[in-house]
Amino acid sequence: MSRIAYVNGRYLPHQEAGIHIEDRGYQFADGVYEVCEVRHGHLIEERRHLDRLDRSLRELRIPAPMSRTALGLVLKEVVRRNGVINGSVYLQVTRGVARREHVFPAPDTPPSLVVTARRANPATQEATALHGVAVISVPENRWPRVDIKSLSLLPNVLAKQAAKEAGAREAWFVDTDGYVTEGASSNAWIVTRGGAIVTRPAEAGILRGITRTVVVEVAHELGYQLEERPFTLAEAREAAEAFITAASTLVMPVVTLDGSPIGAGHPGPVATALRQRFHDFAEVTA
Amino acid sequence: MSRIAYVNGRYLPHQEAGIHIEDRGYQFADGVYEVCEVRHGHLIEERRHLDRLDRSLRELRIPAPMSRTALGLVLKEVVRRNGVINGSVYLQVTRGVARREHVFPAPDTPPSLVVTARRANPATQEATALHGVAVISVPENRWPRVDIKSLSLLPNVLAKQAAKEAGAREAWFVDTDGYVTEGASSNAWIVTRGGAIVTRPAEAGILRGITRTVVVEVAHELGYQLEERPFTLAEAREAAEAFITAASTLVMPVVTLDGSPIGAGHPGPVATALRQRFHDFAEVTA
Repeated sequence: MSRIAYVNGRYLPHQEAGIHIEDRGYQFADGVYEVCEVRHGHLIEERRHLDRLDRSLRELRIPAPMSRTALGLVLKEVVRRNGVINGSVYLQVTRGVARREHVFPAPDTPPSLVVTARRANPATQEATALHGVAVISVPENRWPRVDIKSLSLLPNVLAKQAAKEAGAREAWFVDTDGYVTEGASSNAWIVTRGGAIVTRPAEAGILRGITRTVVVEVAHELGYQLEERPFTLAEAREAAEAFITAASTLVMPVVTLDGSPIGAGHPGPVATALRQRFHDFAEVTA
Repeated sequence: MSRIAYVNGRYLPHQEAGIHIEDRGYQFADGVYEVCEVRHGHLIEERRHLDRLDRSLRELRIPAPMSRTALGLVLKEVVRRNGVINGSVYLQVTRGVARREHVFPAPDTPPSLVVTARRANPATQEATALHGVAVISVPENRWPRVDIKSLSLLPNVLAKQAAKEAGAREAWFVDTDGYVTEGASSNAWIVTRGGAIVTRPAEAGILRGITRTVVVEVAHELGYQLEERPFTLAEAREAAEAFITAASTLVMPVVTLDGSPIGAGHPGPVATALRQRFHDFAEVTA
């Protein structure tokens, strides 16, 4: 089955799926995106992802490309046409195509919408989670509006590449006060030696992760103590456990930080429990 | 004459000029660009623009899409095919097309190169310079690597739009210490009441503007006192003159800042002299 992409009203073979060179996403990173998990053929937490998309678009004053209902149908159709049972669906909305000028184009410029889907192997993911992943720390160097899920991802690209070259899977941004903000494509969590789960509040300096939101609920339901507060890199080094959350990895245990083991150096019981119970609490689109 | 764009080895009608949806420029702002003035059919300061392009690519470890000589020929051909006598040529290089992952793609992934050209009316530009432009100040909110001329332009877009909505042409970013860093698409300058030209050093916090570099030379040649140091917004409000520099506007007098007049509220003699003499010192490609 060959891949199919949705691009501005058409379902196209992936290889032929193009956008114009003057799409503002290409020239100005003037757009936003979402990645939603697909599990057993269904979208996970679609409602929250589309709520967040609406917020990102509103913050940047980009018009919605279509109604919520229509967008839901496109996502479903892209998943179906690509035969994705387990994997993810990616959507990107930009301010559309216009002669290159920084200022917004004419109000009637239609936004661009691209949707793709791809498969992932749950067994591979589970094997990774069984061993946990390595994380490095990098100085926070993103713009302050990281609450908007925008295409301005160059610092994230560089951080992820630095992680890869250090043999790690993720990079945690650390601000000038020593606090971990979040990962380059995930939220950051620790479990203290006292057993409290700690993650930064979503009010400032991070993206309000959808997986993060669900994991907060899971933690409450499982009776864990949860502290929504910033934590430092020093505190993370002394933690009993650490983990990251994202739609593409769910709850992923972190076993080393900058090359040193976290806790016992293997996935801990809290991260493992949160991962195992995640889908009992996540909302599934019928 | 219809517009023609160069895209990855082909000269295409502008309307049909597209790139793939998984070009890293579109998904990650993972690329850089340059804008070069065209005057009397010739490129202005091409060498310095291509030097800076090389530096931007090197900083991001994106391979050059072709040799300097070949790129020069493409620029010239795009200008020719578009019949541009006066205007600008725009080039953009991205890390190429690859399955969406933050980390760099395989080393053999060819970078993408897009080149466009367009006309400008020198008479319109001169009329604007005769009246000067309005500038507003906005809080600096870009990532620290603004020395790289990257596609991460979303904060610049928002700043320019804020300027437009305030009836202004440009926005000056002001850091938390009150210093002006630069404009959203230009470098920032003032002339003190004592007659000294002041502009921020290109070592930190700004892009090393090519027009800026030439204007530094022009200022020296014309015997002005030049101070390369940061200046505050407060100092700018009290300045005798202010102006901005960019390849697209050259030396453009600033006559109001946040709605208040600068100096006498009309273009000053220093900015006017620098503008008039600019092309006597700029390098022209034969």
